[in-house]
Amino acid sequence: MTAKKKDKSALSENEGITQPDSFSSQSIAAIQNLRRQKVSPEILIEGILKGDKVSLSRAITLIESTNPEHQNKANTIINACLPYANKSVRVGITGVPGVGKSTFIEAFGLYLTGLGKKVAVLAIDPSSSISRGSILGDKTRMEDLVKDTNAYIRPSASGESLGGVSRKTRESIILCEACGFDTILIETVGVGQSETAVHSMVDFFLLLNLAGAGDELQGIKRGIMEMADAVVINKADGDNLAKARNAKLDVNRALHLFPVKPSGWQPKVVLASAFYKTGIENVWEMITDYLQLTTENSYLETHRREQNQYWMMETINEQLLQKFYNNSDVIALLNENKKAVQKNEKSPFAAAFEILAFYENKNKEI
Amino acid sequence: MTAKKKDKSALSENEGITQPDSFSSQSIAAIQNLRRQKVSPEILIEGILKGDKVSLSRAITLIESTNPEHQNKANTIINACLPYANKSVRVGITGVPGVGKSTFIEAFGLYLTGLGKKVAVLAIDPSSSISRGSILGDKTRMEDLVKDTNAYIRPSASGESLGGVSRKTRESIILCEACGFDTILIETVGVGQSETAVHSMVDFFLLLNLAGAGDELQGIKRGIMEMADAVVINKADGDNLAKARNAKLDVNRALHLFPVKPSGWQPKVVLASAFYKTGIENVWEMITDYLQLTTENSYLETHRREQNQYWMMETINEQLLQKFYNNSDVIALLNENKKAVQKNEKSPFAAAFEILAFYENKNKEI
Repeated sequence: MTAKKKDKSALSENEGITQPDSFSSQSIAAIQNLRRQKVSPEILIEGILKGDKVSLSRAITLIESTNPEHQNKANTIINACLPYANKSVRVGITGVPGVGKSTFIEAFGLYLTGLGKKVAVLAIDPSSSISRGSILGDKTRMEDLVKDTNAYIRPSASGESLGGVSRKTRESIILCEACGFDTILIETVGVGQSETAVHSMVDFFLLLNLAGAGDELQGIKRGIMEMADAVVINKADGDNLAKARNAKLDVNRALHLFPVKPSGWQPKVVLASAFYKTGIENVWEMITDYLQLTTENSYLETHRREQNQYWMMETINEQLLQKFYNNSDVIALLNENKKAVQKNEKSPFAAAFEILAFYENKNKEI
Repeated sequence: MTAKKKDKSALSENEGITQPDSFSSQSIAAIQNLRRQKVSPEILIEGILKGDKVSLSRAITLIESTNPEHQNKANTIINACLPYANKSVRVGITGVPGVGKSTFIEAFGLYLTGLGKKVAVLAIDPSSSISRGSILGDKTRMEDLVKDTNAYIRPSASGESLGGVSRKTRESIILCEACGFDTILIETVGVGQSETAVHSMVDFFLLLNLAGAGDELQGIKRGIMEMADAVVINKADGDNLAKARNAKLDVNRALHLFPVKPSGWQPKVVLASAFYKTGIENVWEMITDYLQLTTENSYLETHRREQNQYWMMETINEQLLQKFYNNSDVIALLNENKKAVQKNEKSPFAAAFEILAFYENKNKEI
């Protein structure tokens, strides 16, 4: 027992018995295989049309991918889903941080699923692309809605231009509709960049406000208020209620200053408390009124057609510019010319035309 | 005398003597020849650098032309003028119709030529391109300034996109500077479209306002007021003076609500009466103060460099899109796809990518 082998280190270990693998290597291989496996667009389309949320998520991931192969697949799926789309109510929801958007969307979403509706929540968040955090990213903020089988929550795509993010959200709507979601809520950060994009993809645009947030705040959001079909004054509860009632009068007066909307709808102000779940049913009732009016006067249909045209043009513009600015040779030439222009060695116009001519020739070569 | 020729009509005329032509046919031919004659860029460059306004006008006409040959000539001229440019004070002037822009510009221009300055007045007017009349078009509105040998007034280019019109105005500034104009005034209509473009090509941005034009009006122009380095309250004369003094306080308060400008300049409010020519010298004094401040803190130089970069990028974006949308095959395919998208037969994205692929292939062929 005292005899020691020379090649043994000071830290020796008795040989024990062989433990079984905690995971079967076969299972691991199967899971890895499944993950690696390229699911065909056809399988995803079938899943989406059957209402399968996993297929929907995988398809939206393809939409969000910058890989050209994924983009091709995404386009196949979108086109297959198109005949089943266009059948939901699309509601845009905006408001500055702190106004209680998440709480409101959760309360509103649960109210709608309670009515037997299927609710999808998407987000447009340009800020996440410049790493200022993202909305809907923290799903735990909507704990109860996440668990609801009739709800689907998708955080926003990030790391792209606003144009790209918006288009991808717009494309995701098509898939959600084909997947059977009849009410789509689209959240936006409410700082004035992405609201126009959201406005151009929804039927009804809702601005969340607080009572007593001050005149200045209202002014900043003037561009947004002009787009709103309704202003919901949130946190209208307890001690806040009297202030909220006054705010309702003020906002109503402000809304009447704007020109009449082409929809024929007069924007309304609703008091609500997402926390105490009051006023939520009034918001939905108002949207129902709006849908009735705009179906009767056929604005809803006309408006959606115009929105489709808008997205066609937006996509073209975005892609034309993106293709140019993503070209590595263009990037190099651009940086070179930026310096020359800064030093006044070259006119900005001459520099621009030089780069454009280079790009044009390059396109011919390929 | 009673004998009448059968072929004479009831209305006969005695043959008179032959009158001399009021214009010599040789002169006509010479003038037509001169007009037809293609003046070389070199001759125009020489003229511009000598301060010849006719050469300047002809060169600006080349800038405004859509003929590719003219555009090439214009680019040659711009590049030759570039080393002599960048030496003026560029002032943007805006204000809603009725605020007295023409009267103010005339009074201000005459004051400046009185100081020995050479003043060029240009305009950006997107409205003229959609036939809603044009600004500066009626030169008679500035009768005295037009006659001033040290002033040059050029009505705005029309019939183009705002992007195109803006770029051409920006290019014209270079020529005016090379022609010896040391103060460039750029007028814009003040309805909120072209102000950003003007703001991006001037050193100092001036908003003309009236006293008592009402809160609503001020609100609409909020986006413009934010850009202003000064607000001039015009028509501050006679019975209007007390009202104008109150307005000055109001506007000053409003201006202080905006964040501090990167120039370090605190925007000012000045009372003036263009008609009675009062307060005009205060406006110029203020601009001089501004120039001193921004020269010392080197903002003026940095800002112009940034503006040049902006114009390089703007020109690229404008040209990329224009080339696409001017392609006749693209136009046809676009119209076709618009219909398909409207009828929901095709997704807006699929349509966009189809047209883009067609365009890309076409570019390779040429």
